[in-house]
Amino acid sequence: MGRFFVRYSLGASDVADASRQAFDIAVEQTIEFPHDLVTDPHIRDEITGRVESIENINNQRFLATISYDEDTCGTEFTQFINVVFGNSSMKPGVRVESIEPTPAQVAAFRGPQFGVPGIREIVGVFDRPLLCSAIKPMGLDSATLADMAYRFALGGIDFIKDDHGLTDQRSSRFEDRIPMCMEAVERANRLTGRKCLYIPNVTADGCLTLARARFARRAGASAVIVSGALAGLSTLREVALDPEVGLPVFFHPAFCGSYTVCPDSGFSQSAFFGQLMRLACADAVIFPSFGGRFSFSRAQCAEIVEGCRRPMPGVRPVFPAPGGGMNFGNFAESIDFYGNDAIFLIGGGLFRHDPDITRSVSDLLTLVEAEVARIRDGR
Amino acid sequence: MGRFFVRYSLGASDVADASRQAFDIAVEQTIEFPHDLVTDPHIRDEITGRVESIENINNQRFLATISYDEDTCGTEFTQFINVVFGNSSMKPGVRVESIEPTPAQVAAFRGPQFGVPGIREIVGVFDRPLLCSAIKPMGLDSATLADMAYRFALGGIDFIKDDHGLTDQRSSRFEDRIPMCMEAVERANRLTGRKCLYIPNVTADGCLTLARARFARRAGASAVIVSGALAGLSTLREVALDPEVGLPVFFHPAFCGSYTVCPDSGFSQSAFFGQLMRLACADAVIFPSFGGRFSFSRAQCAEIVEGCRRPMPGVRPVFPAPGGGMNFGNFAESIDFYGNDAIFLIGGGLFRHDPDITRSVSDLLTLVEAEVARIRDGR
Repeated sequence: MGRFFVRYSLGASDVADASRQAFDIAVEQTIEFPHDLVTDPHIRDEITGRVESIENINNQRFLATISYDEDTCGTEFTQFINVVFGNSSMKPGVRVESIEPTPAQVAAFRGPQFGVPGIREIVGVFDRPLLCSAIKPMGLDSATLADMAYRFALGGIDFIKDDHGLTDQRSSRFEDRIPMCMEAVERANRLTGRKCLYIPNVTADGCLTLARARFARRAGASAVIVSGALAGLSTLREVALDPEVGLPVFFHPAFCGSYTVCPDSGFSQSAFFGQLMRLACADAVIFPSFGGRFSFSRAQCAEIVEGCRRPMPGVRPVFPAPGGGMNFGNFAESIDFYGNDAIFLIGGGLFRHDPDITRSVSDLLTLVEAEVARIRDGR
Repeated sequence: MGRFFVRYSLGASDVADASRQAFDIAVEQTIEFPHDLVTDPHIRDEITGRVESIENINNQRFLATISYDEDTCGTEFTQFINVVFGNSSMKPGVRVESIEPTPAQVAAFRGPQFGVPGIREIVGVFDRPLLCSAIKPMGLDSATLADMAYRFALGGIDFIKDDHGLTDQRSSRFEDRIPMCMEAVERANRLTGRKCLYIPNVTADGCLTLARARFARRAGASAVIVSGALAGLSTLREVALDPEVGLPVFFHPAFCGSYTVCPDSGFSQSAFFGQLMRLACADAVIFPSFGGRFSFSRAQCAEIVEGCRRPMPGVRPVFPAPGGGMNFGNFAESIDFYGNDAIFLIGGGLFRHDPDITRSVSDLLTLVEAEVARIRDGR
């Protein structure tokens, strides 16, 4: 069987210490059993993770490359994550830097079904970054939210998503909101001639997530949003691959912050938001951009973008979807930084710019087109 | 509507800074919208999280108590987690210290269906800590694993779980392993007269987790294990509450380390392993004990125990299930520390003590009973 590779950084006093820790990880992530007591040579030499190399990154940190037999995971995504970082997530100072699945794993996990080209095809916009806003705040009723969606769509925005906090509350029931917002956006599309998409949030408990995604599809949705850390990454993947759904899936980062918030544990931004989400079949990955309400740095955002776009044979590139503090003041800079193949999320900034959100969206589109032209013409 | 409370610790320069940050969290976790632009008084004053108090913990850290309207969550567990710590999980330096749900939320979420008394009733052991081992390593075939389960059970152990890395690999298919291990343990039980339970690992992708739990129940299992961070906490809860399953659920901590590994972000041990897992309906919570392969301290383990046992009106106390490095050398100390209402996980230590694992278990039981008697008699 083929072997896949995971690169971990870890804190160690010297190369011998790093090697010992890497071997502990290789054992922990697979046999979880005293290695010297294993008698079966196949389990001892193949099933047990194998430390392939140790490199010094700087005085305190080392990069350990460990390979694992595909058979440790079978074809299950949860078990793949478990081998990559199950128990070792509890070891302080250990961080997943990158993941290199085998071709057979890529074929089994499948990855994003739409990715950048598929989403562009649906929206019909090819020459500029895409724009997304959210209907909110929670507490509004479905009619008010649908009216807000209508006014966003009329301005020419590409996507309108449910705020990730809109699920199935008394103020706005899921099964009421989705058809009402769909209808409102389609009504606006008939006037504008555009293909604005309404993206319902289908995140729910257990198997209800898949049921909501199917409901959204039947109601006419062209994409859905799932908070992967709340619903489970394998649930996001199930939605993306379900033949009755068949829609692009946007990953929302709610509850996932703990995986990347500490510099020396969890995952690198690139491995988590990029590689892992692509293997989980997300087509667009929402994350907090630099300079906003969160404290992701420019370097961290660049890492996420790299993870969304880096070549992974057989796995489509996906849209980085930065948000969390976009406004008219930082939009040009953001386009400069992220380039054309990004989906920009702007919520509060649109309301702040002009209480008439249709005009606000229209002004934003003008700004985006001017900036894209400026960059294209090298001005 | 009632309001529930979450206590966050956060890093701040002074009380004004802490108050400002707490207000940002209160807004982020609910309306995620510029508060000054909210016109509806109900949304502005009730739906928006409310900072109830700010206390200085020490120079650098403050404790912020924020209350949220029940209506922000409805009755969904994923949305409850989202309000507790969705986007704010991405804010460095913010940590959930404790959670205080309302009676209505407790009634909706239900909590552990068995807990400590229910599990003791099933096993029929009331006067000592319970003992659990795991069949492993991965790579063994189902017949060998079943034989191992038989030999563990013959020694008198209370529980035999699948290693959490055993799912549905080529070497041991789920649907073969479960009936074979069930049969082996029942055969041993007929000889010993005890009620040793075999606990299948039903963690799988998406809705397959529930399907595996139902399969396990039909095959005669008396409990199941779910890696909650891999399958999703709401999936664990779905298994626990499913009428076709109706079994105690053991929480395994694979992939959850990032939620507690950093001291100033994520969750406190007590809130995560204790309160959150109880609300997710886990009946026993597996975690790495101090002094083993992981680096949880005694203080952290004490916090977990406190979280498993602390009074939460309407929510049963659950078993702390420490593991990850238990052996004959530290067992007495562990009983001293955790007391009777704990489930001790011992794997490699049993194999290391005596290659005859039946004798090894029997020796361990003797040790445990002697230690329990010593403590009881105050020697």
